Amino acid sequence: MPNIQLDPRLKQDSHHLGWLGATELLLMRNSLFPWFVLVPNTNEIEFYKLDSALQLQILGQLNLVSEFVEHRYQIDKMNIGLIGNIVSQLHIHVIGRSRKDLCWPGVVWGVKAFAPYEPGQVEEIVEKLVTFSQGVLRINPESGHCTGSG
Amino acid sequence: MPNIQLDPRLKQDSHHLGWLGATELLLMRNSLFPWFVLVPNTNEIEFYKLDSALQLQILGQLNLVSEFVEHRYQIDKMNIGLIGNIVSQLHIHVIGRSRKDLCWPGVVWGVKAFAPYEPGQVEEIVEKLVTFSQGVLRINPESGHCTGSG
Repeated sequence: MPNIQLDPRLKQDSHHLGWLGATELLLMRNSLFPWFVLVPNTNEIEFYKLDSALQLQILGQLNLVSEFVEHRYQIDKMNIGLIGNIVSQLHIHVIGRSRKDLCWPGVVWGVKAFAPYEPGQVEEIVEKLVTFSQGVLRINPESGHCTGSG
Repeated sequence: MPNIQLDPRLKQDSHHLGWLGATELLLMRNSLFPWFVLVPNTNEIEFYKLDSALQLQILGQLNLVSEFVEHRYQIDKMNIGLIGNIVSQLHIHVIGRSRKDLCWPGVVWGVKAFAPYEPGQVEEIVEKLVTFSQGVLRINPESGHCTGSG
């Protein structure tokens, strides 16, 4: 299994939250939207080229994060996107959208406006995620699957 | 199982290609991009709320359409999106993107530019899809799952 080497642009634009299995979970540095990103542990850039087992793992993780976003935020619609035109590393956007948000009903990709999280807010989200996921979200990577461990 | 009643805006903006199982397959009326849309046979608007069996069916259909797009077109990246902010009916965009296309590297959602397909082009795509999918794409709906049959 490859070790994720997070693309520098993803790293710069996001807070690292933890791991769901071997998938790294990120939060975009923009508190205007509940905007999570899953980065599966693979060098393949297209989801449909992954083997079934990995697709199913990611599907479970996508469901979990979606459920958390619905549980934690007031949202009207979930937006899911696999784009990768700029950063090709496979990553999946999970964004809770509200009729009151800045971009509604447009998509958020490419938006210039942003507001950073206040101190403590990201840690609070991690804490809630750990509780919500009943420990599936791990703060520390599983042995052998971690960023930069190789 | 519910019968799909296709949202009038989706209907207006697309060509109907056929069915993959109970999922309706559409092609956006815009030849600038190979832009397909899957509309699963459900009244649920959020993918993560579907039961596992239906998620897995849709996953298989998504893989098939993605593989077809890669096979048929010269693409640099696949874009997959579940948005639904305007049309809430669950629908999944599968778009083959090229570095040479009009919106690259931006997303295509919201683009104003379009060019209709020439006569015969849509029929040709259907024919290729039927062959590629080895008959999985059906021109006629399966009994009991069809649009407007109820």
